[in-house]
Amino acid sequence: MSLLNMPLLIQDTAAIEGDMGMLWMLISGILVFFMQAGFFLVESGMTDSKNAVNIAMKNFLDIAVGSLAFWFIGYSLMYGADVSGGGFFHWGGFVFSQGAADLFFQTVFAATAATIVSGAIAGRTKYTTYAIFSIVLTALIYPIAGGWEWNGGWLNAEWMPAEFIDFAGSSIVHSVGGWAALVAAWMVGPRIGKFLNGKPIEMHGHNQMYATLGVFILWLGWFGFNGGSQLAWGGDDATAASQVVLVTNLAAAAGALSALLFTWIKNGKPNLSMTLNGALAGLVSITAGCGNMSEGGAVLAGLIGGILVVLSIGFVESKLKIDDAVGAISVHGVAGAWGTLVIGLWGIDGDAGIGILNGGGVSQLAAQAIGVVAYAVWAIVASWIFLTIISKCCGGLRVTEAEEIAGLDISEHGSIAYAGKRQREIE
Amino acid sequence: MSLLNMPLLIQDTAAIEGDMGMLWMLISGILVFFMQAGFFLVESGMTDSKNAVNIAMKNFLDIAVGSLAFWFIGYSLMYGADVSGGGFFHWGGFVFSQGAADLFFQTVFAATAATIVSGAIAGRTKYTTYAIFSIVLTALIYPIAGGWEWNGGWLNAEWMPAEFIDFAGSSIVHSVGGWAALVAAWMVGPRIGKFLNGKPIEMHGHNQMYATLGVFILWLGWFGFNGGSQLAWGGDDATAASQVVLVTNLAAAAGALSALLFTWIKNGKPNLSMTLNGALAGLVSITAGCGNMSEGGAVLAGLIGGILVVLSIGFVESKLKIDDAVGAISVHGVAGAWGTLVIGLWGIDGDAGIGILNGGGVSQLAAQAIGVVAYAVWAIVASWIFLTIISKCCGGLRVTEAEEIAGLDISEHGSIAYAGKRQREIE
Amino acid sequence: MSLLNMPLLIQDTAAIEGDMGMLWMLISGILVFFMQAGFFLVESGMTDSKNAVNIAMKNFLDIAVGSLAFWFIGYSLMYGADVSGGGFFHWGGFVFSQGAADLFFQTVFAATAATIVSGAIAGRTKYTTYAIFSIVLTALIYPIAGGWEWNGGWLNAEWMPAEFIDFAGSSIVHSVGGWAALVAAWMVGPRIGKFLNGKPIEMHGHNQMYATLGVFILWLGWFGFNGGSQLAWGGDDATAASQVVLVTNLAAAAGALSALLFTWIKNGKPNLSMTLNGALAGLVSITAGCGNMSEGGAVLAGLIGGILVVLSIGFVESKLKIDDAVGAISVHGVAGAWGTLVIGLWGIDGDAGIGILNGGGVSQLAAQAIGVVAYAVWAIVASWIFLTIISKCCGGLRVTEAEEIAGLDISEHGSIAYAGKRQREIE
Repeated sequence: MSLLNMPLLIQDTAAIEGDMGMLWMLISGILVFFMQAGFFLVESGMTDSKNAVNIAMKNFLDIAVGSLAFWFIGYSLMYGADVSGGGFFHWGGFVFSQGAADLFFQTVFAATAATIVSGAIAGRTKYTTYAIFSIVLTALIYPIAGGWEWNGGWLNAEWMPAEFIDFAGSSIVHSVGGWAALVAAWMVGPRIGKFLNGKPIEMHGHNQMYATLGVFILWLGWFGFNGGSQLAWGGDDATAASQVVLVTNLAAAAGALSALLFTWIKNGKPNLSMTLNGALAGLVSITAGCGNMSEGGAVLAGLIGGILVVLSIGFVESKLKIDDAVGAISVHGVAGAWGTLVIGLWGIDGDAGIGILNGGGVSQLAAQAIGVVAYAVWAIVASWIFLTIISKCCGGLRVTEAEEIAGLDISEHGSIAYAGKRQREIE
Repeated sequence: MSLLNMPLLIQDTAAIEGDMGMLWMLISGILVFFMQAGFFLVESGMTDSKNAVNIAMKNFLDIAVGSLAFWFIGYSLMYGADVSGGGFFHWGGFVFSQGAADLFFQTVFAATAATIVSGAIAGRTKYTTYAIFSIVLTALIYPIAGGWEWNGGWLNAEWMPAEFIDFAGSSIVHSVGGWAALVAAWMVGPRIGKFLNGKPIEMHGHNQMYATLGVFILWLGWFGFNGGSQLAWGGDDATAASQVVLVTNLAAAAGALSALLFTWIKNGKPNLSMTLNGALAGLVSITAGCGNMSEGGAVLAGLIGGILVVLSIGFVESKLKIDDAVGAISVHGVAGAWGTLVIGLWGIDGDAGIGILNGGGVSQLAAQAIGVVAYAVWAIVASWIFLTIISKCCGGLRVTEAEEIAGLDISEHGSIAYAGKRQREIE
Repeated sequence: MSLLNMPLLIQDTAAIEGDMGMLWMLISGILVFFMQAGFFLVESGMTDSKNAVNIAMKNFLDIAVGSLAFWFIGYSLMYGADVSGGGFFHWGGFVFSQGAADLFFQTVFAATAATIVSGAIAGRTKYTTYAIFSIVLTALIYPIAGGWEWNGGWLNAEWMPAEFIDFAGSSIVHSVGGWAALVAAWMVGPRIGKFLNGKPIEMHGHNQMYATLGVFILWLGWFGFNGGSQLAWGGDDATAASQVVLVTNLAAAAGALSALLFTWIKNGKPNLSMTLNGALAGLVSITAGCGNMSEGGAVLAGLIGGILVVLSIGFVESKLKIDDAVGAISVHGVAGAWGTLVIGLWGIDGDAGIGILNGGGVSQLAAQAIGVVAYAVWAIVASWIFLTIISKCCGGLRVTEAEEIAGLDISEHGSIAYAGKRQREIE
């Protein structure tokens, strides 16, 4: 009964500076929470209606189990004070906390990392597979990786060529989620009908309106995701957090525009789903550097991110032959790596350039590259190990062919997304 | 013309503490306003498409008439300084106010209470019936009840075994709305086809995606609903409000998870609509106690709330033979009562346990039970009286059988939700 | 490479007062950003599903190109310190800024003005036409007009009968957008089938649920739109901004209610799409006067705005024979003019009446009328010039008849909104 008797936490003022900082973080956390709705809409809109309930159930699982698992163990693995393995592992005991506002903010971040995977493997993965992997990702894979950087772990060590910079998590959140999605989509295999004689077939989503609304909600939430990562408000921190929000918007705008124009030139018509992914890629591209990027630099990072995601989505499908149902690997993994590296190209630190293109030498780029590789290796290896275990002990990762064709909504949840009067017409 | 000449209100600093408190309350009020969109999506998604326009019209009525009625009379009945009836009634004159931020915050609360009813009686109730009852609830039933507790009314009297605690309104808002929904659904009667030989038939909603998005929006808005009820920000208040947001999220997560697992075990498949109701039940379960609950206690309150709502929905249908189209009676009434009582089981007050399971004796539970019963009796009796009057003077509460079968959208509003190209297929 | 080297902006404290003011403006800007999602939902819901992707692409263009164009040139034209033309033109150099929070807030305002046009000309306009006009509006037409008032331009000159008041942009944002929409809808011409023998035919939208959700989101965002225009927080500013939010909500409620009742009386049934437009008209009606209006005055302004919009929509269709697909001309243009003028009828300045009905004489009404006319003339003439140029150099403003009938989604974007399983039924 000790959990019930647990007194209210005393806010550790070391974690967040000041009353206004706490207010800004809480509001930011609330915005980041809303990103779950955005992911739900993007993922369900970009996939078939027969799997839409399943997407909703995965998103609820992410935030439900994720909130509980991160509270119970994840936050401690990420922010605990006991360090081991040379800054690889942290621990602070179960139900560890440095204060409610910070714990809430970090919790909704953790739920985001898990959600990234769900879109990539939509339409053919067992619900139990996803449920277990979502817990593992939120409680173990993500928080351990987060501690490397945000808890003063080994990526801040003196032997690094420079201090690794990942302000709001291009690598820590997005690329970890993206590379886990890569492994998962590869291990689960493509949806039936995705490849015909080795060539990818476009499988249309069922509602581009949902996807559009979802991207607007994600863009909105990202202001909290990046801006809240200032972890403070007042004086220079207020100016800095405002600047973070401004460059976040500029990079998103640039990513949407470049993807729009690139598909227009490439295919003769401006394409909506690529524009949506371009906006998201722009956002991911500025997530690491939003505290270390001029406005012009942010625009350029976003422009390149928007083109990169279009190219990467084609590459993953056509060359890697991996079926990523919503482009999550490209949006979060590839743009996440790009957003981390770009700091080494034209990042700034106050007035000083720290990138190789603006006079900062090569050390920052080297540090960024070390971080990118480290997070990729960690996410890929850890995901592979856990998914292999899940596959062995639970009879495979994937539903049967009959279940997949019927749709996961019927086979896994005994329900369909559009019922009532419209159900009869849809059937 | 005196209303037009009325000077801008002077903010009464007694109502809200400090500039930051006012900022937090205003932002919280904005979040609570957004809950109207959440209710709209949940209610329309969980019911038939032929009644979706009607749901939208009810939600607009709630916020439109509710905002005006609560401004003109409701706030005064709730927060006025003239006390009568031993703390049962309050009055402060028409257009009473203690400051704009507080009035706005309280207005969006009042609109929430009204909205709860609309879902339960969806699909067969006259629009005029609902319109009148919505005004009565926002302008009279809810504010009078609110004054009992939040304006230092009789529930804070010395003869009470302990001071009744309902931090953000598990009883005052949710159970009042829920019990009013119970009376209304019982008096209006079930939808045609809901019961066959006395057995309830499942009537599917038309769009579970709307319902899912709606629950995400409600969950989001609830951070303002509970967190804003701190009515202050800064120092200990900032810590306390952050803690409120944290435990609100944990309880919602726990409610969603327990309903998900409970339906999985019970029916063999995890069910989306019950998971959605479980999340809402978790939120209602922590609304009274979010300032008096440890994190562990909040999780447990939510876990039980999520199971309770599944059982209660079955009970209302199968035993009471009442047709609650969206589960509002169970989500708001039953979980509202549970959330109020649980403070007497394992609530805390700072470091001290005040529940019977954590050393606080029985007096708090007794106080909570008195409040639960008082709000139930009030909501049931007042709703019954007003609905009886409306029924007598307006020729019944319900549309004709032909109108119900055609759908309220056509019969009450001359319109359908999905028109244009898709209209032709739907028809 | 100078843009990449550009240091982080130093926040100019002249633009926004204090840390709390910056926080409130940033949060307000985030809310205003979300209005893009609201416009997207309203416009796509109120029009045919065959043009829904096109609406989404226009909205993305508005925020993407708008953000970049306003950052690069628009903000400078609006807030630059170099004055010419007697307060008609301002300039501050490319990439001018007075601080990130203000620039972000003003950017999302600019994107709003552009978006207003897109709904009116939905369903028959070339994407290139819209793209170019959206840039022109955001980068030139809107910011030049904005400087007249918000940068101390000629509308504040001493020769004016009184200082023109437009607190948050009834005229500057909404009527400029609305009058530009009028010109655009007139020049592009009506959709095929809109007029039969000169009589307007109702062309139903495809999803009133989207439109309803969109209006809730716009109402939500408007709290930031109006409240954030206080440009400060703390002490009297906190009280004033709270009051702004309160009267904004009251006017919206009044507009929704009066349109609901007016259509109920007029047509026998309360109409959803007019209720939605009534709420928006209520919001536009209080946007100029939200800092100069008693609560009663705001309610009355909203009530009249809600009726005005219903009458105006009929007038534009039946008398002007202009096809405004979503009522944008009436909601933003007409209600924008009304909201600006009403300050001269019963506006207040602190305790003093400044309108002709509450003892303020005629000078304020005269000043308001000058502003209304000036913005109308500017928006109409500038839009006509630019659209004529676009028409000449790009082979007309409009798609071919075959493209229009097929739908812009197919013809302009090679895509449809509802694909996958539902695609096959829709086709």
